[in-house]
Amino acid sequence: MTEEKQLVVGHKNPDTDAVVAAISYSYLQNQTGMNTEAVAQGEPNKETKFVFNKFDYKYPRITTAVNGDAKKVMLVDHNEKQQSFDDIDNVEVTHVVDHHRIANFETALPLYYRAEPIGCTSTILWEMYNEQDVEIPAKIAGLMASAIISDTLLLKSPTSTSKDEDALKSLAKTAGIDYEAYGMEMLKAGTDLDDKSTQE
Amino acid sequence: MTEEKQLVVGHKNPDTDAVVAAISYSYLQNQTGMNTEAVAQGEPNKETKFVFNKFDYKYPRITTAVNGDAKKVMLVDHNEKQQSFDDIDNVEVTHVVDHHRIANFETALPLYYRAEPIGCTSTILWEMYNEQDVEIPAKIAGLMASAIISDTLLLKSPTSTSKDEDALKSLAKTAGIDYEAYGMEMLKAGTDLDDKSTQE
Ligand SMILES: [Mn+2]
Ligand SMILES: [Mn+2]
Ligand SMILES: [Mn+2]
Ligand SMILES: [Mn+2]
Repeated sequence: MTEEKQLVVGHKNPDTDAVVAAISYSYLQNQTGMNTEAVAQGEPNKETKFVFNKFDYKYPRITTAVNGDAKKVMLVDHNEKQQSFDDIDNVEVTHVVDHHRIANFETALPLYYRAEPIGCTSTILWEMYNEQDVEIPAKIAGLMASAIISDTLLLKSPTSTSKDEDALKSLAKTAGIDYEAYGMEMLKAGTDLDDKSTQE
Repeated sequence: MTEEKQLVVGHKNPDTDAVVAAISYSYLQNQTGMNTEAVAQGEPNKETKFVFNKFDYKYPRITTAVNGDAKKVMLVDHNEKQQSFDDIDNVEVTHVVDHHRIANFETALPLYYRAEPIGCTSTILWEMYNEQDVEIPAKIAGLMASAIISDTLLLKSPTSTSKDEDALKSLAKTAGIDYEAYGMEMLKAGTDLDDKSTQE
């Protein structure tokens, strides 16, 4: 019996965490027998483009609506309706993994919801991989480390916690990167004003 | 530094899971350095009274409002505002552990939220004890097993899952009970029509 396909998606105007969390949650779900596709609600920003180049990973299909592709979806890095698929009211949200407040969110049925008041959704996903004892591929670990660096400004933001630090150190090891040197380079790439071609 | 006291509470018109989940989550939180008090929003029903007698456990303080006793609260076995403290809007909800749909629930700040579409909140709490490697005292294990028996009608309700079964078997072992024999006795006590004194 094949599971019915579900989409996994982060918020509109995606940042690195929104896209990467969709990829890593989709991978985790598929490892445990689900049939999911990660999608992104927009083009990568300059930082996110740098990250996907660095780890040689394909950017997900871009769409801001389900368009009948699935009956059920999973949300990452957001829950508020206005940040989600245009046609979110036409589908069932079965899973949410997030680190934001809950608002403008309501379901008709019980669901899986996992939120923690910490620096990054990818930190929660790292925890879930550990809890479920699923190995994180090196490239996905590199993406997840990048998302934590992005959301916590290299562990310096006020929302950053010791759990984000543990996750970043563990993921950097799996990815084989020096997170401090790489983090500086990545944050610089995101704010680099020289490359006019990618500016809107 | 002492943590500021928080209340942990289940829904109004409490069933066994609502009261027991408040007790077991409060215990888990306190084991990890928090300062919480479990309270119940009403008198025990006949089944719940049987359970607390059986495991010789003190029923929590009864209150349907925070009444200035805490600035922050944790909700179990519910999230909808109308099932919660009368003055829930005056406090911050920092944690929710639940197995119901999400509705009429909104926060100003990020929070810890853990929900799964399974038979019982106490099953999720059993999972959290395991994840955090905290030992469950035998009496609390007995209460938690009772909550699962109550919510899943001894694993026979349509909402019951294999995780509820795993949890019940594990908790029954810790509590030192034969869950099938005890479960029949407990469900019978809850529906016993002989004891007129506890009927409204
Ligand atoms: Mn984001
Ligand atoms: Mn994020
Ligand atoms: Mn209940
Ligand atoms: Mn329940």
